[in-house]
Amino acid sequence: MSISIMTQELMALHISQHQAAMQRFVAQHPLADCAEAFSMLLDEQQLHSQDVRDLLRLLPLDQQAALFGYFSLPWQQAIAEQLAADELAHLSERMAHDERADLLALLEPTLKQQVLQQMDSRERQDIERLASYPSDSIGAVMTTDFAVLDATLTIEEAMHHLRSIAAERETIYQAYVVDEQQKLKGTVSLRDMLVAEPSQRIADIMTQALIFVWVDELQSVAAQAISKYDLLAIPVLDLQNRLVGIVTYDDAMDVAEDEADRHVHKAGAVDFSGNLKDATIGLMYRKRVFWLVLLVFGNIFSGAGIAYFEDTIQTYVALVFFLPLLIDSGGNAGSQSATLMVRALATGEVVAKDWAKMLSKELFISALLGVTMALAVSLLGFWRGGAEIALVVAITMQIVVIVGSVVGMSLPFILNKLRFDPASASAPLITTIADAIGVIIYFSVATMILDFPPMA
Amino acid sequence: MSISIMTQELMALHISQHQAAMQRFVAQHPLADCAEAFSMLLDEQQLHSQDVRDLLRLLPLDQQAALFGYFSLPWQQAIAEQLAADELAHLSERMAHDERADLLALLEPTLKQQVLQQMDSRERQDIERLASYPSDSIGAVMTTDFAVLDATLTIEEAMHHLRSIAAERETIYQAYVVDEQQKLKGTVSLRDMLVAEPSQRIADIMTQALIFVWVDELQSVAAQAISKYDLLAIPVLDLQNRLVGIVTYDDAMDVAEDEADRHVHKAGAVDFSGNLKDATIGLMYRKRVFWLVLLVFGNIFSGAGIAYFEDTIQTYVALVFFLPLLIDSGGNAGSQSATLMVRALATGEVVAKDWAKMLSKELFISALLGVTMALAVSLLGFWRGGAEIALVVAITMQIVVIVGSVVGMSLPFILNKLRFDPASASAPLITTIADAIGVIIYFSVATMILDFPPMA
Repeated sequence: MSISIMTQELMALHISQHQAAMQRFVAQHPLADCAEAFSMLLDEQQLHSQDVRDLLRLLPLDQQAALFGYFSLPWQQAIAEQLAADELAHLSERMAHDERADLLALLEPTLKQQVLQQMDSRERQDIERLASYPSDSIGAVMTTDFAVLDATLTIEEAMHHLRSIAAERETIYQAYVVDEQQKLKGTVSLRDMLVAEPSQRIADIMTQALIFVWVDELQSVAAQAISKYDLLAIPVLDLQNRLVGIVTYDDAMDVAEDEADRHVHKAGAVDFSGNLKDATIGLMYRKRVFWLVLLVFGNIFSGAGIAYFEDTIQTYVALVFFLPLLIDSGGNAGSQSATLMVRALATGEVVAKDWAKMLSKELFISALLGVTMALAVSLLGFWRGGAEIALVVAITMQIVVIVGSVVGMSLPFILNKLRFDPASASAPLITTIADAIGVIIYFSVATMILDFPPMA
Repeated sequence: MSISIMTQELMALHISQHQAAMQRFVAQHPLADCAEAFSMLLDEQQLHSQDVRDLLRLLPLDQQAALFGYFSLPWQQAIAEQLAADELAHLSERMAHDERADLLALLEPTLKQQVLQQMDSRERQDIERLASYPSDSIGAVMTTDFAVLDATLTIEEAMHHLRSIAAERETIYQAYVVDEQQKLKGTVSLRDMLVAEPSQRIADIMTQALIFVWVDELQSVAAQAISKYDLLAIPVLDLQNRLVGIVTYDDAMDVAEDEADRHVHKAGAVDFSGNLKDATIGLMYRKRVFWLVLLVFGNIFSGAGIAYFEDTIQTYVALVFFLPLLIDSGGNAGSQSATLMVRALATGEVVAKDWAKMLSKELFISALLGVTMALAVSLLGFWRGGAEIALVVAITMQIVVIVGSVVGMSLPFILNKLRFDPASASAPLITTIADAIGVIIYFSVATMILDFPPMA
């Protein structure tokens, strides 16, 4: 069913405040769609956060918490601020541990304190610990509501235990076995438990925990491991090797999507991740102005190159016709190489030590591309300016395509080596560098060839 | 453990052919890492595909099949070609249904026929059906080994059934209820079954199947739905609404990653997805040459613009100093806008009808960016050429940034409207368009202002 029909139903529910109808509505639609319909009405100011709160209150608390988790953080915050501290505390107790920590971090300090005081001390500590991790670390995306099993339990006992905690755990399909020091001993999947004999012990069927991540690593490390090893969840250890959380596949998918956003944006020289529609004009200005102004200053080098060759240009003004074409071609070939390399480095398909191998391949490819483009442009050169101009533009094209490609493929490696993000080797940056080099190559070649006496 | 140590172990196993040691090796390392170590040795030609085949033969057939699934398709093909038809048939019977269909599609027709003849007719039909879907459709990525339950079963009976099929099914955490016509009636998760009473019926606890995809839709549709609704798997229906397969979250992650690759690459004007390290020079040449040559011809417009204003340039050759800087700035601002818009359209965050809203926002943002950059460049203009040149470059900068931004943000919408891929609005394409427009704006402004008599 389309979201717009759902919004109409919600507006009717808003007017009637019919409890049974509201519960039926939520049962009949996926929660993600319910939250999307609510959010659309909030965006369009047809409902206010207190209206949404009133409708949520018509649901049982568990369902409130589940639905609430599908709202974006800013809307969660707006609705939370309409709740009394004790109501928010009850709601938080039923939310996923990672999501409630993110929400509470956004609340103003006095409200946050009031909410925390209403919760029992274990939950409070859990929230405070999760909030203490840096925002790009695995700690900030992991959840602490994982299932733990004792190695000495029989399968039957373990299943009984999982049944009793199923409602509050993020996943019960993967359970973890730890010793008294909370050190991770092994993992066991519900599938393995199901096919085992009920009298077997967990210790007999558990797998050694070979794959795990540390809490202070980057989130993309966890996402890549989950994808590579086809995991439902990956265990997270602290620096004393104690099990402190898990990252589930659905959070890993979100992390991977954010990473992809960041890459695509960086490739276009804009360092932004988030919702484009919600972003204010001021925010977008700030996200874009840095690179634009920096590139203006980069382009001064191209200008300086041109100034240096002012006499040549004055004598052979026809050369200017080919200027954009030649310098852009180097930039375009370089942008292609940089794009391929940045992505391959990000996904781990190519690593730092592959540089020499990739370079030799790039030399071949760009030489071939250069020949093709030199042929194309020499025809144009002949038509516009005769044989000599054709020769100048063909030679220049061959050189700028090779040089541009090599710069484009090498810059991500260099940035990586210098511990900058390779993704900063954006198409506009490569274009600017290739332009400056292209100007010098073009007019140097022109000066050399055109100063020779005419051949015929 | 690092992959390079694993490769040393594998070389030792290759020499000893020690069966127990090989089985221990595979038990002690994640299968994905084992496959990676094998692949590295294959890449470096330290092992050949028949050597890998011999080592795999030391393992039980189930483990062979599981490990084999982690090899890349080209290596799967190379190893498969070293196997006898009946051996390959036995292996295929134990592989995931989607993976074996992909592999068999690559084999040469006579070997493929021999393998299919060794398999029973149901499996043969399954492979032929999966192979018949277009390569970008959901049919080509779904698997047919899903768990089906009868609505009339009790939970106890259903659990017993799941236990019996657990080994051959891709997942048993999500099961599907169908009627006699194979129409999807509902879904039930193992978690729900676990918390229900053993005497309850599946019909009582199953959820209505609200979320599904059709077999002929694009794979990205399934991946986006799995991510949005936090699913383990999504059911796939044929055009008669019969359940024909499921897409699991791990395949969805792969699809999302490929999509992200494709986007990043298209943004850099290269239409490639796959492994960069394995790609041949010829392939990369073909993937890159199209856009490069096309853009050369695009740049002719810039050249023509310059030719048209040859007199102005000859009179005020200092103007050429600012040419790369001004025309690139329009392209850079446009690349930023295009990048943001392409990604937002791809993730569904922005849709076609948002164009007017995004345009008005873009006008504000680009006006602000233009003012900032005009200020920066006018100082430079004053220093190089005095007040008049400063005025020319400031006005030009303001206009090119606004025009470039509007072109960059609109082009993805236009391509979308014309049913082309918005991602084709790459940075190099925007740069080329913005260059041509920039040349005309620059010299038009210059001609107008510089033809006025000096003010002082």
